[in-house]
Parts: sequence; C-alpha cells; structure tokens
Amino acid sequence: MRVKHKPWARDKILAHPEVCVANPEELNGKWHQLFGNENPIHIEIGTGKGQFVTGMAQANPDINYIGIEVVESVLITALDKALAAGIPNLRLLSVDGADLLEYFEMAEVARVYLNFSDPWPKKRHAKRRLTHPNFLDIYKALLPADGEIHFKTDNRSLFEYSLVAFSEYGVLLTYLSLDLHNSEFEGNIMTEYEEKFSAQGFPIYRLEARFKA
Amino acid sequence: MRVKHKPWARDKILAHPEVCVANPEELNGKWHQLFGNENPIHIEIGTGKGQFVTGMAQANPDINYIGIEVVESVLITALDKALAAGIPNLRLLSVDGADLLEYFEMAEVARVYLNFSDPWPKKRHAKRRLTHPNFLDIYKALLPADGEIHFKTDNRSLFEYSLVAFSEYGVLLTYLSLDLHNSEFEGNIMTEYEEKFSAQGFPIYRLEARFKA
Repeated sequence: MRVKHKPWARDKILAHPEVCVANPEELNGKWHQLFGNENPIHIEIGTGKGQFVTGMAQANPDINYIGIEVVESVLITALDKALAAGIPNLRLLSVDGADLLEYFEMAEVARVYLNFSDPWPKKRHAKRRLTHPNFLDIYKALLPADGEIHFKTDNRSLFEYSLVAFSEYGVLLTYLSLDLHNSEFEGNIMTEYEEKFSAQGFPIYRLEARFKA
Repeated sequence: MRVKHKPWARDKILAHPEVCVANPEELNGKWHQLFGNENPIHIEIGTGKGQFVTGMAQANPDINYIGIEVVESVLITALDKALAAGIPNLRLLSVDGADLLEYFEMAEVARVYLNFSDPWPKKRHAKRRLTHPNFLDIYKALLPADGEIHFKTDNRSLFEYSLVAFSEYGVLLTYLSLDLHNSEFEGNIMTEYEEKFSAQGFPIYRLEARFKA
C-alpha cells in the first residue's frame, strides 16, 4: 500500500502507550502479563488501517489481539480505530515482521493472521512474501503445536505461491476456500482493502493451516 | 456426465482390440511389452470422450497413453477419436478406477491424469472422489517415487477438498494454477468439457503433485 508519509505519526504513536506498545523487546515472554490474563494471543502481521484486528478484538473479548504494522503512517489510522473501540484486549505494534522472535517467546502466540499481504510479485523479492519459508520458520517458533496460521488474499499469484510453499514446508492445510465470500465460512471480518476489492466481484482466497506435529 | 445408454457399445469395444484392451488383468506388469517400447506410460482416469488423451498421444509420440473410462457408452466416443488418430501410443480401457491395482504393477505408470473428475458433492460420497485418500493409496502404488499426478477441474469444491486431502496425505504440490487459462502454463490440451465450460469465463484450477520420498 502506498501511503503519504506523515512525519507526526511517531509522536502520535508515542502519545498512546496504552495501545501502541513502545518497548516490545522488554515484553518478550510477558505479553500475558501485559494483558493481565491468560487468554490466547492472536497477532496480525501487516495490520494496515486496523479494521480487521479491531473488529476481531471487539467480536472476541476472550482473545488478546496484537496488530503489527511496520509503516507508522499507516498504523496511526489503526490507532484511531483502536482508541475509538476503547477495549482492553487490543494492542498495536510498529515493528518488522522479520524481527518477531525478538519480541515474542516460543509458543507465546496462539494464532497468526496474514491478510492481503504485499504480494511482492517479482521473483527476486520472494523472500519478502510473508508466506516464504523464512517467515514460516518464524511462525513455527511463535506458535505452539496446535497454533494456526489464517491467511486471506485476493492475489492469485501470492496464494498459488503460498500453497506450494506450505506444501513443501509440510504445513498442514486444515481449511481452504477459493471464494471466501461465496463460501459457508461464517464470522468473516473484512479488511478495508477486502471491502473495496471484493465489491468488484473478484474472489477472495482463504486458508487455515498449522505445522505438522 | 449423464449419457444415453448404448447397448451396442460393448460390441463396438470388443470389435477393436487394437485400441480397447479386453484383457487388462493379463497385462499386469506387461504394458510396456504391449506398447513394444520402454517409453513412460501415462494414464487418464475418467477419460470421457477422449479428446484430452488422444490430443496428448498425438502431441507426445514418445509417451504411451492409456485412457480409462468405466462407462462404455462414453468410451466408444473416445474410441472413434482414437481410431481416427490411428496412432500406436494410445490404448483405451473400460475398468473401474478403484480396481487399477489389478491391472498395473507397482510403479508401472509414470503419471496419472485426473481431468474434470466427478465432484461427488455429497459428503457421504466423498470416498468416490478420485482425490480421496483411498485413491491416493492406489496412485502411490501405481507411481514410482518421481511419478506425478496432474489434476484439473472447474469444480471449486472438489479442488478445495483435494488440496486439503493432498496436504493431509503428505502429497507434495509442485505446480498450482487457480486460473489455468490465464496462467503461463503452455501446452494445455482441453477436454470437451473444459472447452465448453471455460468459454463461460469460469476459472479452471490445475495442479501437479507427487508423493514425498
């Protein structure tokens, strides 16, 4: 997503430590303490403008959500939504997905959401795709044995790539839809992008997966 | 495919033993002898009216093809195409896919094609789907370690089911397209059904897979 640079974004983020976690490296292994409960922690990597993670947190008060977005000028829109929601089970974090093992202990995260991730269409950028084996290594470390990856996208090439990458890695598919909005799946919360794109009639692809024991 | 019963189909099949193999159980382990060469043997399970298998056999004279179709009233249309093509590397066989291990030795077949297989949409009929684990057991026995399954269909539910079934079974995806006719795949030979269906603008799903070592 191209976005206008907003130099004041950093200050706004720092002004809201109750939502935007400023010291994630100190919270490694202590996220449940931060939330003040033992509820499962679900993270969304690439939270964007935050509609999905905020909607999920509102719909599921017994789950703790962390929306992760490296672009601060985008995260502040998510911050506005989180502040408006005013709920205790949601935090935002501005870090790079590749560094997540610095901020979370092994198996500290119960589920990883990837929504409409950047497809990085050029082959030489394949390592940046959030379903590349290098990222799967990270998710495998973050998640317990029964932890899940939930991934949706409108990008056909990225989904094709991801299914082959998951197969090679030995990730187990547990759910698949090649047209989410015409499937039996219930409780879908749309991202901003998904609302716009699906209105044009293109299919949304979605999968759930976990690492084989 | 619903098809009019043609009581004379059996006689027509028996009249052409040079194409329609009448004694497949006697050929178990001896198919290369029948073809008179050591070229790889590729089979299509559910050959229907035969356009695919005939086209492939014409395009690839160094591969032996066997089209398998249990419905004799359908197979005779494939027989007409095979007779018109007049090529030595094509045979037809009217047997049930579930019985293939009676007719082929282990690793005698190098590739299995599944094209627009019956989706058997009801859950209680799942065992009849040609990508059900019971059939994967058969293909695993038919194929050598590097043998491949090539599968295409327009049926979204069948393709979704198959990808999950393959993942659970540990079948390795090596190629995937969620829109074959808008992909970079070259050399596609269409089935009769595919020509009709894809003209309506619906996507054709396609995969290649092999069993993990």
